[in-house]
Amino acid sequence: MRAPHSRTVVLLSLAGIAAAAAAQTPGQNNAITDVPGISVGHFTGADTGTTVVLAANPTGGGVAGGVTQRGGSPVTRETDLMRPDNMVETMNAIVLSGGSTFGLAAASGVMRCLEDRGVGFPVGGGNVVPIAPTATSFDRATCNAPPASRPDFTSGLQACLAASGGPVVQGNVGAGTGAVSGGVKGGIGTASVVLPNGIVVGALVSLNSEGAPYDSGGDLMAASFELGNEFNPLTRIGGHRFRVPPSLPGGALRSGTNAVVATNVTLTKSQATKIAEMADDGISRAVNPAHTPGDSDTLFVLGTAQVAIDTLGDANAVVTQIGTAGANVVSRAIVHALLAARSTSCQPSYCDAFP
Amino acid sequence: MRAPHSRTVVLLSLAGIAAAAAAQTPGQNNAITDVPGISVGHFTGADTGTTVVLAANPTGGGVAGGVTQRGGSPVTRETDLMRPDNMVETMNAIVLSGGSTFGLAAASGVMRCLEDRGVGFPVGGGNVVPIAPTATSFDRATCNAPPASRPDFTSGLQACLAASGGPVVQGNVGAGTGAVSGGVKGGIGTASVVLPNGIVVGALVSLNSEGAPYDSGGDLMAASFELGNEFNPLTRIGGHRFRVPPSLPGGALRSGTNAVVATNVTLTKSQATKIAEMADDGISRAVNPAHTPGDSDTLFVLGTAQVAIDTLGDANAVVTQIGTAGANVVSRAIVHALLAARSTSCQPSYCDAFP
Repeated sequence: MRAPHSRTVVLLSLAGIAAAAAAQTPGQNNAITDVPGISVGHFTGADTGTTVVLAANPTGGGVAGGVTQRGGSPVTRETDLMRPDNMVETMNAIVLSGGSTFGLAAASGVMRCLEDRGVGFPVGGGNVVPIAPTATSFDRATCNAPPASRPDFTSGLQACLAASGGPVVQGNVGAGTGAVSGGVKGGIGTASVVLPNGIVVGALVSLNSEGAPYDSGGDLMAASFELGNEFNPLTRIGGHRFRVPPSLPGGALRSGTNAVVATNVTLTKSQATKIAEMADDGISRAVNPAHTPGDSDTLFVLGTAQVAIDTLGDANAVVTQIGTAGANVVSRAIVHALLAARSTSCQPSYCDAFP
Repeated sequence: MRAPHSRTVVLLSLAGIAAAAAAQTPGQNNAITDVPGISVGHFTGADTGTTVVLAANPTGGGVAGGVTQRGGSPVTRETDLMRPDNMVETMNAIVLSGGSTFGLAAASGVMRCLEDRGVGFPVGGGNVVPIAPTATSFDRATCNAPPASRPDFTSGLQACLAASGGPVVQGNVGAGTGAVSGGVKGGIGTASVVLPNGIVVGALVSLNSEGAPYDSGGDLMAASFELGNEFNPLTRIGGHRFRVPPSLPGGALRSGTNAVVATNVTLTKSQATKIAEMADDGISRAVNPAHTPGDSDTLFVLGTAQVAIDTLGDANAVVTQIGTAGANVVSRAIVHALLAARSTSCQPSYCDAFP
């Protein structure tokens, strides 16, 4: 049985930074929307759906972003554009969806929504091209039955129209509607942290992993990353009587944890890419195995340009700080996804499997 | 004034391999469809369109592929999946389209077309996910007027339904409908070569480059790559009286030469990727400047698995041979695109600009 809190306190006391660590608290909604400039919308269909994370800088323009793609079965759009050597620096949205490769169609609906608002990369003549990099995964909660529907243009359009700040609904919604994580129901999770120097880092994950998010005893892999008592339902865990063997379908295009990490700091694409590489470790710590050949695992980072990085100190140190916080917040968002997920006819939730 | 033929003959005679070089001839249609397993379809709209290259191995399954993405304004789908470290080895189609980022929607229509035929990566329950990596570019032949239409789901569906072997229509069709190359009209071009050992290499390009395909005297950059007298209209070039300054819009997401190279050899994803990197030099030699920040330049390679690579000799030597041939055939396809293009109200063709 883990005792994460006491262990954490000992370590932090030894390092003499307990006060600083204690100052790390979740944001107001413990959600990616705690990052100014970020809004989130879901479209939830019968057994699949789409989630969009909209991003804007203080003047409404796009924001720099980065991506890392480590699962062996990626389904992506516009990730090449995000490479630091490529030109466009301004992302307007990140789209996460179920529906495997078919779900990429949702991005076109998000583009329409943004274009109607005049949001996008200007290409002359008053025209804009909304930049909405996308990652989808194969959501299996239909229990191998043919899906009743697929995310499409309308799913993306509706998710975008529904986007708002404030609290974010988690669990069986949006891109997480049909998600599975190992042997239990996956879903959407979100979390945030406010650092003592004012940096805000938030994450939203669509947890649909081939690997399991709990260890052989049934404990959540990422339990020790809790801030305060945000994982309060974990106290319900007793004897793990209903051990659920992780489901390992072993095929490509079958699963995948896709995520968005956002911060209020102004980033370059290179900095955002490095932060993505670090924040991706938050998946590694919360799911085992992660990044399998069958997983789509793709993680995006956005910096909403509210705070200049130079005002925070050495840029590399700030990138390290955001990357570290990003990994932790991704792990926490994965736990939130599991705790918010509800059982379906063929897939128990974590809370039902380990009551 | 260039004299490519006499120079070539001298060099080859010195090397004593004139006979081998002479044995390199275009395939029956001088088109990518000369590669067994490849078919091509266009959808041509009012001022933009979509082109699909379908690929199948001898049993109708998908084929391994690779990609290189060197333009600074890429618009892509499923390029991550093509990385050798990722799992899916079987591409079913490559989609090229106009319409910039909006044009990515065409890929969904191609997927529908293929799914209806049962073509795709099997994901259980008899379901398939067609793998159709895609690159689009911004076609500017509307002369900065708003586009009358955009490639969409239907464009991709129609292009796929129209796909066939045999001759390939070139010029102002499909993804090349609204294409521009420097100061002249761009378009679709294709070419092929049959090597003495039976390797067939074909290319299809959507030429929509920021850079110009001709030098300061008006000569085509890639004129010296001619096989036989395939560039016959070039004999029309006289005094270059109508020098057309290359149009360099200098903005991102404005242009891009996207291409598909196919060969009848069985390739791994790693081999296909290396061939893509070599074949991309065919763009460099035919367009100047190439791979600018504003270009989408993305080049795909497919191996249709008709001939085992081991039967042809050392695998690395064969990859080098295909990569070399691929670059040449890309350059030739670019010339074919220019010679087939027709002038529009705002964009002269090469043949009209240099009568």
